Amino acid sequence: MLHHLDTQLDELKQKLLAMASHAETAINDAMRALTDRNHELALQVKANDSVLDQFEIEIDDLAIHLLAMAPLASDLRLITVVMKISQNLERVGDEAAKVAKRARDLSQEPPLKLVPDITAIAELALQMLKQSLDAFVNHDPAAARALIPRDKEADALNKQIHRELAQQMVADPETITRCLNLMVVSKSLERIADHATNIAEEVVYLCEAQDIRHAAK
Amino acid sequence: MLHHLDTQLDELKQKLLAMASHAETAINDAMRALTDRNHELALQVKANDSVLDQFEIEIDDLAIHLLAMAPLASDLRLITVVMKISQNLERVGDEAAKVAKRARDLSQEPPLKLVPDITAIAELALQMLKQSLDAFVNHDPAAARALIPRDKEADALNKQIHRELAQQMVADPETITRCLNLMVVSKSLERIADHATNIAEEVVYLCEAQDIRHAAK
Repeated sequence: MLHHLDTQLDELKQKLLAMASHAETAINDAMRALTDRNHELALQVKANDSVLDQFEIEIDDLAIHLLAMAPLASDLRLITVVMKISQNLERVGDEAAKVAKRARDLSQEPPLKLVPDITAIAELALQMLKQSLDAFVNHDPAAARALIPRDKEADALNKQIHRELAQQMVADPETITRCLNLMVVSKSLERIADHATNIAEEVVYLCEAQDIRHAAK
Repeated sequence: MLHHLDTQLDELKQKLLAMASHAETAINDAMRALTDRNHELALQVKANDSVLDQFEIEIDDLAIHLLAMAPLASDLRLITVVMKISQNLERVGDEAAKVAKRARDLSQEPPLKLVPDITAIAELALQMLKQSLDAFVNHDPAAARALIPRDKEADALNKQIHRELAQQMVADPETITRCLNLMVVSKSLERIADHATNIAEEVVYLCEAQDIRHAAK
């Protein structure tokens, strides 16, 4: 019975990591659709979002099944943490789909010079997501804790992008619609950094049984 | 032991309902701060957000404690559903705080006529939230299911508001900053409707053991 539970806990983790890999691909593809003005790729990212939805359902299903097997306290934490990480990854997928949708709209308008900070915030968000998942895989609460303050960098970048785009809108009202699309992109990337931060907080809870959410406020 | 578990499950539900009541108050106050241009009230909503954060931590804590008591399958569903609803309410609080922040900013700028749809989307979001929680209290999956399609109304209202504000920005670039603030308000209210929809989906899962998330896509 216990051995069986271990195998299923492994399966749960593997499923989560497969989901994470899909989420990362979605962000990369959405950003590529934006920078290359690739309409087809944008549509594809939106269509692929249902894969992440399905992962979320399967992971919750397996998790609830495992919770019923009266696991140890540490297993309990693992199972509930996997459910929470999975939910965050599903939302990362939603944000990637939003980026893709705006990339699609922008690909059909005259090109607008992308503010360089958009690339910077995309790189930061993706890096934070990867590192939060690495911290989960390596059971490394120190790495997870080190990540959490970087959320402020993402917030600052998003604010900076927002300011730049607002200025551009005032200077050239013809660009208003396109700037609004880019604001949504930036906000989605900032939210991906939020989700990475949530994942890092779950890793700390998993490893140290300590709830550090909202501690920074 | 079983009786003791029942008492603690009741406590868990009561805590969730107290949290829900705080979340509703936060939305109401944030909207009042916006419409009355009440700077003080806006600051107060932002400050009160930590109450919801604390509820989320306490509810998760109690839930994990209860999961370790090897409950029945139906209790298991209740506990995990309460954790998910609590997470949604915590985010409702975050959105209310965002509305309050924009209300604060707007109270210090020249008045801008509010598009009437902003009031409409606020009423819809709050109504959906209340009804989703009523469905939880009354264990009423039919009421929960009836709520889910209304999410599309909130999306449509938000898009309509977005269009109206974008037109206003083009017509009068001096209003750009204020219109951007109102766009954030509208988006936050649309997200509160999303959270209400999530809660309704959890109620269906609680009552029918059927995962209907993402089914509409």
